[in-house]
Amino acid sequence: MTKPLILVSNDDGITSRGIRVLVDVMKQLGEVVVVAPDSPQSGMGHAITIGNTLRLSEEEIFQDVLAYKSSGTPADCVKLAKHYVLKDKKPDLIVSGINHGSNTSISVLYSGTMSAAIEGAIEGYPSIGFSLCDYSSQADFSHVENYVYQIAKQVLEFGIPKGVALNVNFPPKRNEALKGIKICRQARAKWQEDFEERYDPNGRKYFWMAGNFVNFDKGEDNDEWAIANNFAAVVPCQFDMTAHHAIAQINDDWDWEGLKTSI
Amino acid sequence: MTKPLILVSNDDGITSRGIRVLVDVMKQLGEVVVVAPDSPQSGMGHAITIGNTLRLSEEEIFQDVLAYKSSGTPADCVKLAKHYVLKDKKPDLIVSGINHGSNTSISVLYSGTMSAAIEGAIEGYPSIGFSLCDYSSQADFSHVENYVYQIAKQVLEFGIPKGVALNVNFPPKRNEALKGIKICRQARAKWQEDFEERYDPNGRKYFWMAGNFVNFDKGEDNDEWAIANNFAAVVPCQFDMTAHHAIAQINDDWDWEGLKTSI
Repeated sequence: MTKPLILVSNDDGITSRGIRVLVDVMKQLGEVVVVAPDSPQSGMGHAITIGNTLRLSEEEIFQDVLAYKSSGTPADCVKLAKHYVLKDKKPDLIVSGINHGSNTSISVLYSGTMSAAIEGAIEGYPSIGFSLCDYSSQADFSHVENYVYQIAKQVLEFGIPKGVALNVNFPPKRNEALKGIKICRQARAKWQEDFEERYDPNGRKYFWMAGNFVNFDKGEDNDEWAIANNFAAVVPCQFDMTAHHAIAQINDDWDWEGLKTSI
Repeated sequence: MTKPLILVSNDDGITSRGIRVLVDVMKQLGEVVVVAPDSPQSGMGHAITIGNTLRLSEEEIFQDVLAYKSSGTPADCVKLAKHYVLKDKKPDLIVSGINHGSNTSISVLYSGTMSAAIEGAIEGYPSIGFSLCDYSSQADFSHVENYVYQIAKQVLEFGIPKGVALNVNFPPKRNEALKGIKICRQARAKWQEDFEERYDPNGRKYFWMAGNFVNFDKGEDNDEWAIANNFAAVVPCQFDMTAHHAIAQINDDWDWEGLKTSI
């Protein structure tokens, strides 16, 4: 039996600790190819490089693994992997991460890690983004390795519904062992930003964005609840942004007669 | 009666033709404040600036309008507007655009224009992204000005369901007048990329991303159909990425016994 082909990317860059852990786990499940950014791309959302050039070069960084680094975003990396690196070979699984930091709730929109997974789902491949809710570059991933393995194995075995990518977040390492996995929904929360004003050596003003995560969600079926209660949170994500429930409402609310006469 | 406060942003940059048209139309409806990128940010998706500094400076570019340019992304601009420029003043409407180029279908994910509108919706403000399906920097916006006015007026008057931003796309100027407005869903389509390989003067390889838009959607209730048939397409968008239908399926499909014993 041929081994499954597994494409690995991330947003913290090809030298991060998280991608090394992910590559090591995936090597136990299949043949691994890496295409990842050459520098940190956190917060890049679903950005792609359209007004600029892209670099891509092979990098001997992981043992027995074909790896490329790119100047592009995580979404660019998946596109380059598909059309340039893998060409006619189709990956059986695309995994992104393991991110150093949470991608729960609304952060899925800003997440470079998840943009690689969503890009994979758009292309029709089973795709998973993994994140650890610990921002340290030296984060301890030891409590999640077996979970990453098991979740990827489930996906290779049972697949994921079409057009869906999994957003998997793990609690930081605590004294207590992880309690298990919750398949859940994105929590209703947002970031409350704060801009810190500073002056550069030439006296010109600049800003640092900082912020606090504010959770409005009282439910127990969401990813924030799962993380707070020491479960791994698995949110199936899709890329139809349509607010289907709002179509009828807007059709009802708007004054179409007014629109017709004045347009 | 106080005039409505309207925040304007975009992704093509503060000097683009599209934002000038948008500012002129919005001035007929309220008091306008502009916070927009200082350079083109197309394809930035929902990127934010977290590992780098941000610049923001006042710019006398529109007549009788307070305007700021920023080094940040469209989402950054809305955050800076809320927390720094407007402070305690709450906008009655946030508009982004008018983008030079289509943001229909899957492009909503890659769109900087829409990320500003989605960011507005996350913050709880009625928000609209406007795009013209014409990529030319000298695009003719004359056929859409009254539509932009009417749609913004409807939203100021009737609001938008909570947590929803409108993605409005207009067909390019054709001989025939626009047929009207369709409230519709995001078409099922994707970009089929192609990477053009070139060599720089030092002999090092680089790539340009190019691509064709591939529409799989046979429906007549989607934004691609609307544009092809010379309607303005209005898609209500939301920011819950959860594939709610997939939660039960994954709970059913996965071998939880296996997960329990091996984790």
